[in-house]
Amino acid sequence: MARIVMKFGGTSMAGTERIRRVARIVQRQQAAGHEVAVVVSAMAGETDRLVNFCREANTLYDPAEYDVVVASGEQVTSGLLALTLQALGCKARSWLGWQLPIHTSDAHAKARILEIDSAALIAAMQGGEIAVIPGFQGLSEHNRITTLGRGGSDTSAVAVAAALKADRCDIYTDVDGVYTTDPRIVAKARKLARVTYEEMLELASVGSKVLQTRSVSLAMKEGVRVQVLSSFIDDDAPPADSLPGTMIVSDAELEGQEMERQLITGIAADKNEAKVTLTRVPDQPGAVAAIFGPLAAAQINVDMIIQNIAKDKGETDVTFTVPSSDLARTQALLEAQKDTIGYFRMISDSHVAKISVVGVGMRSHAGVAATMFKALADRRINIQAISTSEIKVSVLIDEDETELAVRVLHTAYGLDGE
Amino acid sequence: MARIVMKFGGTSMAGTERIRRVARIVQRQQAAGHEVAVVVSAMAGETDRLVNFCREANTLYDPAEYDVVVASGEQVTSGLLALTLQALGCKARSWLGWQLPIHTSDAHAKARILEIDSAALIAAMQGGEIAVIPGFQGLSEHNRITTLGRGGSDTSAVAVAAALKADRCDIYTDVDGVYTTDPRIVAKARKLARVTYEEMLELASVGSKVLQTRSVSLAMKEGVRVQVLSSFIDDDAPPADSLPGTMIVSDAELEGQEMERQLITGIAADKNEAKVTLTRVPDQPGAVAAIFGPLAAAQINVDMIIQNIAKDKGETDVTFTVPSSDLARTQALLEAQKDTIGYFRMISDSHVAKISVVGVGMRSHAGVAATMFKALADRRINIQAISTSEIKVSVLIDEDETELAVRVLHTAYGLDGE
Repeated sequence: MARIVMKFGGTSMAGTERIRRVARIVQRQQAAGHEVAVVVSAMAGETDRLVNFCREANTLYDPAEYDVVVASGEQVTSGLLALTLQALGCKARSWLGWQLPIHTSDAHAKARILEIDSAALIAAMQGGEIAVIPGFQGLSEHNRITTLGRGGSDTSAVAVAAALKADRCDIYTDVDGVYTTDPRIVAKARKLARVTYEEMLELASVGSKVLQTRSVSLAMKEGVRVQVLSSFIDDDAPPADSLPGTMIVSDAELEGQEMERQLITGIAADKNEAKVTLTRVPDQPGAVAAIFGPLAAAQINVDMIIQNIAKDKGETDVTFTVPSSDLARTQALLEAQKDTIGYFRMISDSHVAKISVVGVGMRSHAGVAATMFKALADRRINIQAISTSEIKVSVLIDEDETELAVRVLHTAYGLDGE
Repeated sequence: MARIVMKFGGTSMAGTERIRRVARIVQRQQAAGHEVAVVVSAMAGETDRLVNFCREANTLYDPAEYDVVVASGEQVTSGLLALTLQALGCKARSWLGWQLPIHTSDAHAKARILEIDSAALIAAMQGGEIAVIPGFQGLSEHNRITTLGRGGSDTSAVAVAAALKADRCDIYTDVDGVYTTDPRIVAKARKLARVTYEEMLELASVGSKVLQTRSVSLAMKEGVRVQVLSSFIDDDAPPADSLPGTMIVSDAELEGQEMERQLITGIAADKNEAKVTLTRVPDQPGAVAAIFGPLAAAQINVDMIIQNIAKDKGETDVTFTVPSSDLARTQALLEAQKDTIGYFRMISDSHVAKISVVGVGMRSHAGVAATMFKALADRRINIQAISTSEIKVSVLIDEDETELAVRVLHTAYGLDGE
């Protein structure tokens, strides 16, 4: 017997027919002898509808009242799933954020989970009752409803799994797992049986939008084993114990299970970055701070930063990337700071893509970067910038060459399936 | 300065444009120097949508989970009204049923309000904040969401007004007050400035569907002064202090204000009753109990009961009315009891109407019934049954003569306007 948290997203909860399908998946888990808690999102489209109501009511809306309105979407689906499970003959009840409670910070519309009281929940589950919990919502210390920000239901599920010391947190989505790369780009992409939290973070943050980054960070911090799998599996499929999806686990667990680690786990591509270069920046202390200080203050997320060694006359070029959606604000801020920074020209380009090779295996292997550069050079793909982390090498290239680069690297690292 | 509770129904809350209209009405009350709490219904149609979801999920739904789902409608409108008031520059916040809390019984889907903690509410209102409270919902002693049954928001408003010791509870509806009779039947019907709780109960229960009967009973018990008025008044109208609607007050207050009371306050018609006659029932102890016992056990609400004195051979005819919707069940129950009761024949007729003249004035006046019988006889309207209470005389007539009877009586009691 295991204790399992199952999470279903908005597409899976869109309407009573789909909720019935979800209920049957949940019922099968319980029938297999497990203690089950379920975390649900609002019906697809419902949160958007409620957010629009708030915007119409008040363009500068009070996030505390916004939370009262938007949290209702998950309240509805949690009640409906409990009713549907009861119709199948299961014992089930809903536990709203304020009922458990799920204690959060006071930061309405972007609250952080602080603690979950799980005693009543565990008692109910041990009595054979399925606990249904609305995702995305919690309770502030001022006894008001909070929400965790869009996509927060994944985080709710992981937090509930941590509080329940669950054996596994199964996240049901509209994909059936994490792949070596986007299967729409590379037909030979393979589903990964396991990835580490760190790899998942790198893959998620560079474009494989399977899980909210925040939920993966929390899972890593709390040591929650997360499985990504599809809610659109065959109704007669065996229960998820056969682990048909991708398990996200710690590095230690992975090393214990796989003798020979792949060097590289996956390839990710991200077309949503823009490149900015400031030329002839004075090579002196404080110049770089004058560039990035204002961007940080404006909450613009700077990713890659490349500074070459000083050329003659004590000047250097500084290149960095920002999200494309922040490019206009970035340009305006740096234009305003031109005299303070003392650069000569600003050149920007949103027609770039970041290609990353990710793998915990590279920690103990040299040559990963060299393989990458050679493979790209062989196809005459020009590298505009490079950045590395312990488990990732990223390069910036022309956006038009994205798919070619991903395919070339997928083959170069031996990731192609049969 | 007064303390006022305002209540707006689903039609008034249907969409952000209408909510803005409501917010302006509320703002004017506060600008007039009053402390204001607002009780709101869900958007028109929303509760039906949520109830349908529950039925689709589980035909025999668990009322505790049903309450979780349907209470969300009022949660949404309370948050939206708070946001809209803030957009107008008012201080406002929502107080959900579980936050105050509004303590209710455990009878999910038909809970009764037990007590409302009003300390935090009063403190907020004294600080100039408008309190927005979702109607229809409360909290059980087991910390679960309850609802009061359909139309419960009127009851919520009166209960909040009682807890706040409010000077007045203004119920905004799609009519502008209580009339001497249905203006669609009698063009000369007049709006009443004041009626007593007892009169309102009789008028409501016999067809003038302005307020939920339950909310009037509660107002009477708690001594809450209720005003019925329209939410579709001119935006530039003076604040409701000029009392444009109908005030529902105690008999004592009414007597203090009106030297000459009208004999009759209003005429009500109800076409939703059916008449049942059992012929040749044995005139002996226990026979009547054998008829009405099973009906009471089946929760069928018997209204008028007429039993003539025994004819020869120790037998009598018994006539009574039940709601038309319960006629089939009534027939089946009595058919099954035929031998026990010992009646000869059952005759039923759903093509009847109950016409009632209502007025606290009739307590001290004779002749009300005689005027009624003469006015109807003059137009050859046949009276099939009669019942009376302290403040009401009701007759049962052919349904086809409903409008004629109402007009004749409205004139006979001198209720016609100019």
